[in-house]
Amino acid sequence: MIKVGIVGGTGYTGVELLRLLAQHPQAEVAVITSRSEEGVKVADMYPNLRGHYDGLAFSVPDVATLGSCDVVFFATPHGVAHALAGELLATGTKVIDLSADFRLQDAEEWAKWYGQPHGAPELLPEAVYGLPEVNREAIKQARLIAVAGCYPTATQLGFLPLLEQGLANPATLIADCKSGVSGAGRGASVGSLLCEAGESMKAYSVKGHRHLPEIRQGLRRAAGQDVGLTFVPHLTPMIRGIHATLYATVVNRGVDLQALYEQRYANEPFVDVLPAGSHPETRSVRGANVCRIAVHRPQDGDQVVVLSVIDNLVKGASGQAIQNMNILFGLDERLGLSNVALMP
Amino acid sequence: MIKVGIVGGTGYTGVELLRLLAQHPQAEVAVITSRSEEGVKVADMYPNLRGHYDGLAFSVPDVATLGSCDVVFFATPHGVAHALAGELLATGTKVIDLSADFRLQDAEEWAKWYGQPHGAPELLPEAVYGLPEVNREAIKQARLIAVAGCYPTATQLGFLPLLEQGLANPATLIADCKSGVSGAGRGASVGSLLCEAGESMKAYSVKGHRHLPEIRQGLRRAAGQDVGLTFVPHLTPMIRGIHATLYATVVNRGVDLQALYEQRYANEPFVDVLPAGSHPETRSVRGANVCRIAVHRPQDGDQVVVLSVIDNLVKGASGQAIQNMNILFGLDERLGLSNVALMP
Amino acid sequence: MIKVGIVGGTGYTGVELLRLLAQHPQAEVAVITSRSEEGVKVADMYPNLRGHYDGLAFSVPDVATLGSCDVVFFATPHGVAHALAGELLATGTKVIDLSADFRLQDAEEWAKWYGQPHGAPELLPEAVYGLPEVNREAIKQARLIAVAGCYPTATQLGFLPLLEQGLANPATLIADCKSGVSGAGRGASVGSLLCEAGESMKAYSVKGHRHLPEIRQGLRRAAGQDVGLTFVPHLTPMIRGIHATLYATVVNRGVDLQALYEQRYANEPFVDVLPAGSHPETRSVRGANVCRIAVHRPQDGDQVVVLSVIDNLVKGASGQAIQNMNILFGLDERLGLSNVALMP
Amino acid sequence: MIKVGIVGGTGYTGVELLRLLAQHPQAEVAVITSRSEEGVKVADMYPNLRGHYDGLAFSVPDVATLGSCDVVFFATPHGVAHALAGELLATGTKVIDLSADFRLQDAEEWAKWYGQPHGAPELLPEAVYGLPEVNREAIKQARLIAVAGCYPTATQLGFLPLLEQGLANPATLIADCKSGVSGAGRGASVGSLLCEAGESMKAYSVKGHRHLPEIRQGLRRAAGQDVGLTFVPHLTPMIRGIHATLYATVVNRGVDLQALYEQRYANEPFVDVLPAGSHPETRSVRGANVCRIAVHRPQDGDQVVVLSVIDNLVKGASGQAIQNMNILFGLDERLGLSNVALMP
Repeated sequence: MIKVGIVGGTGYTGVELLRLLAQHPQAEVAVITSRSEEGVKVADMYPNLRGHYDGLAFSVPDVATLGSCDVVFFATPHGVAHALAGELLATGTKVIDLSADFRLQDAEEWAKWYGQPHGAPELLPEAVYGLPEVNREAIKQARLIAVAGCYPTATQLGFLPLLEQGLANPATLIADCKSGVSGAGRGASVGSLLCEAGESMKAYSVKGHRHLPEIRQGLRRAAGQDVGLTFVPHLTPMIRGIHATLYATVVNRGVDLQALYEQRYANEPFVDVLPAGSHPETRSVRGANVCRIAVHRPQDGDQVVVLSVIDNLVKGASGQAIQNMNILFGLDERLGLSNVALMP
Repeated sequence: MIKVGIVGGTGYTGVELLRLLAQHPQAEVAVITSRSEEGVKVADMYPNLRGHYDGLAFSVPDVATLGSCDVVFFATPHGVAHALAGELLATGTKVIDLSADFRLQDAEEWAKWYGQPHGAPELLPEAVYGLPEVNREAIKQARLIAVAGCYPTATQLGFLPLLEQGLANPATLIADCKSGVSGAGRGASVGSLLCEAGESMKAYSVKGHRHLPEIRQGLRRAAGQDVGLTFVPHLTPMIRGIHATLYATVVNRGVDLQALYEQRYANEPFVDVLPAGSHPETRSVRGANVCRIAVHRPQDGDQVVVLSVIDNLVKGASGQAIQNMNILFGLDERLGLSNVALMP
Repeated sequence: MIKVGIVGGTGYTGVELLRLLAQHPQAEVAVITSRSEEGVKVADMYPNLRGHYDGLAFSVPDVATLGSCDVVFFATPHGVAHALAGELLATGTKVIDLSADFRLQDAEEWAKWYGQPHGAPELLPEAVYGLPEVNREAIKQARLIAVAGCYPTATQLGFLPLLEQGLANPATLIADCKSGVSGAGRGASVGSLLCEAGESMKAYSVKGHRHLPEIRQGLRRAAGQDVGLTFVPHLTPMIRGIHATLYATVVNRGVDLQALYEQRYANEPFVDVLPAGSHPETRSVRGANVCRIAVHRPQDGDQVVVLSVIDNLVKGASGQAIQNMNILFGLDERLGLSNVALMP
Repeated sequence: MIKVGIVGGTGYTGVELLRLLAQHPQAEVAVITSRSEEGVKVADMYPNLRGHYDGLAFSVPDVATLGSCDVVFFATPHGVAHALAGELLATGTKVIDLSADFRLQDAEEWAKWYGQPHGAPELLPEAVYGLPEVNREAIKQARLIAVAGCYPTATQLGFLPLLEQGLANPATLIADCKSGVSGAGRGASVGSLLCEAGESMKAYSVKGHRHLPEIRQGLRRAAGQDVGLTFVPHLTPMIRGIHATLYATVVNRGVDLQALYEQRYANEPFVDVLPAGSHPETRSVRGANVCRIAVHRPQDGDQVVVLSVIDNLVKGASGQAIQNMNILFGLDERLGLSNVALMP
């Protein structure tokens, strides 16, 4: 039984870790921390957990207690894992960070986008980017995993087959992404109110979103060269789900894109390439750890359109974190992640 | 392994049976029927099922094939089970009917509310009302189970403790119920369009809804006498969930209602009595087979207000059907029904 | 031209006043205040106002400036109008308060429900309750109007015909009310997030809501005696709208309730009694200053069910405030309030 | 007073015409037709219209009656206007068609996309494309106006300033468009159910949508040359609104795009260019006849991103139709179209 700790369990990725781990046969949550909710039972804060975690309460984060766990998940705002990860690793505990703290390999770029110095640049050399579909072998050996972000997961999985094979012009990539409001977290902000975000659609951060450098870093690795990416995120009036609509110019019209995508992901348990002509819906992945992808070439032109959907809280965060844990501990990658998406 | 057949698998209760049974360790779906979708794979119609039922396709209903199953679920409009149940029972197959066909013990009352003669009155004497919290022993012995309806489940579970103990005036009961739109099914009707039912609230069928006689029958049984019930259902702009707000006049202000409810459901795995002062949310049961209940007596007056929430497609339909199956086949009642509600 | 001031214009009732007054032919907004947004143009905060109020910016509240207006609306949290109303009245300016500050005639009851002493009890004798359908003559003469609240408007208009004629038992009234989330205002609170309030239904404040004493006061006046009222508000996953489902026991089954309601409201421009058997939808009043009502007696029993819908921000707040202003200034009551509800 | 007829008044663009014309000071609806609803009062079908059109009922379409109107709006599926427009024009009545029947100048292309022969190719030479921002002078002289479609309006208004000035590469245009569900009309289809379209996002018709040739035709006219356009529409879980996210490669980075857009639309009453850095929300135009636009050049690169929002039922259909009518009859273009968008 893997003994799990969770730092920062009050947000949406925290409760989602609890939801998924409740069904995991070989992991149990031993510690969950929150400074603001110390002593509160998790099931009092999240009544969906009643009957599943009746003894578990939030405690103040403490390295000694967390260090007794086999693995600690950080479901925290950026900066928190910087401060604690080093100490935890020193105790022999593995760290799986759902925040952005260790996703960018370049500490200066991190500092630029997050507006503060990187707090643990010495750990970057060993931080493994936790996107199993590109990094499975490295994950097996890791001590510190930086789970891929939500937009970056949907976007990279959608572009990878094209870029890895050099089939698209890497200079003119576009990712038009639509996210449900849970991506903004559980913080009380006016922009996330039902009366502000409901029944409306808008783009945001067109000037530059923090996930842009993360996506670029991943695509660059896949393409083996620099990429030019325009990334426009949109706030969509729904709770869960990311729909990435990806545009690329093919360099060779003769390639069978459907076969390319099917082959690339043939052995991936959590990437589902839909039949030609499909339009994946975000609800088809609601609550499930899967990315569904369809690839189109409208009017048989140069422009490829890839449609890629995930649940931002599952394959885009907590489910993917557990997938990383399973790999890291040598378990069947699918353990605890086999539930069916909720539809309708 | 229990061999399961499903008649009428294209609607929401059908796909929900598939979702839940995919996680059931001792049941497998062998047959699923639909006249209109013959030959279509279930995963093509419901992409959330991709990877779970890849071989399963809809077939035309046929007694021989269905009769090879241990149990057949009817997820059909009313009338269909009337026509087929008798033949299936004759083959030794158990029948669990999610429709209203065998819920009312009185065939004439059925005919009045459904506007057509009862199609199988001879089966009524052995039909067992499938609400485990009141009928568990009878369910164990049943061949034919009429799974309780959605409004009836939320309403009966909310009123039962009061009525069984004679603590409320049975003549002035009120059930003000709010349902998500999935209760109306997957049929293409204007009233269920997002543009008609979204961002709006309305009552319907105030004159008389088909669930009224079913609820009355159940409450009468609990009270041991006739009851007067005003039942007003409302269409609520959400997909899943029923919120029943129940009003009753207590005959004795001295009773500890909180203790009464807690004791009544102490051993029920799927009824959760919340702490005093709570307000259950429908999302706390989304996707889960549980009814959460809170009981209030505002301003310490005579009026009791019971708040009872379920997911209409789970504890109000398919989950409850599987709970009945578990009981019927002598399994742990919770098998396949332990997933955590999806929140947010 | 009536010169209008608005105190506290950043909330939903404030922007709704601006929306409606933009179409009012005999009123113009001269001043709008907000301490936190001083200097910000209203159209920068609310882009729907672009092109309508391009010169108007928020200023710090100041009695001299506000006192130059003919009328000042308070669209503020409770307590603010207590502090300013007296000074403004002294300048000859009329005050129309959308908050709860002057709705309860009993200062002690106010203090009990709002948890602080009443700040201007000396003004209560002249405060007129701004529900035109019961108080039109007094409104004409008023200096200080306390606009009726949202739940109180829907509930009182629904119960009045019965109570004024002594046709219902006043001791057993029930108001089961459903409100859109905009009723909670524009403050950043976790409970009003799309991810918390969306796709879910819950009751709240069952123990006692601040609108309870206001409704009771109004119903007592109508009935000419004390009333017993159970009031249960619910949060509904939509932006605008209140649906009040009202239950009363009739004392005389022979009365033609449909005729009673039609006659009571025959001359009311903003109360619409629907044909017998109707079920009003909240969307049928979205954005419009109207209350639509239907009255039912299910199964011809003793229990009357009244369905009453309003837009909480219009007939439940800003529209009603303007209706009061029109009456107060001797204008056609419908001026600026004739737009059609937005449907779908 | 302009005497107005409406053919096909039961759909969403029909009721929206009624909503807007109720506020128009110089037009009145004399006739409204529907074969299926003959004799039904419009206010019985659309209760938001109660009090505004109490005498008006649907009648069977008839050229004599319609021909007595000054102008007839077609709010019909494609094909209907083909059959009737010619006869009506012969009576001297003007025709404003909200359907796609006369939008494409090329009858063969129309036939290809709509799967049936064009029913009135002889009228095409005089059909005027009803997008006032490009065609105002022609509209003044027209007898037959083909109102621009919803996606085409948002997309063309967003691209025009760039293309008219030759500032973007016309070969690589992308329009990633998101529409509310009302764009699919009021027909009872499974895909538009709240339980299917709610809480989910999907692309559709990526292979080729019927609005593609219409948009291409308009952009070609603006660019003065052929254009290459990838158009991907998405179904968004909201009732009203289109958000077009437009991508183009600039040929000259030195141009001040903000000034370009502001100048292009300086005299347009219904196009609002937002300040630099803005992100328009669809709710800022809900119910209003306006297109709000923002223009971005992320990271100062080659890629321009234009954000363009409209209410698909207003500036994308019925409001624009009335704007055309105002121009056609020599009225102030803004008459009846000055209401403020509903926000929240």
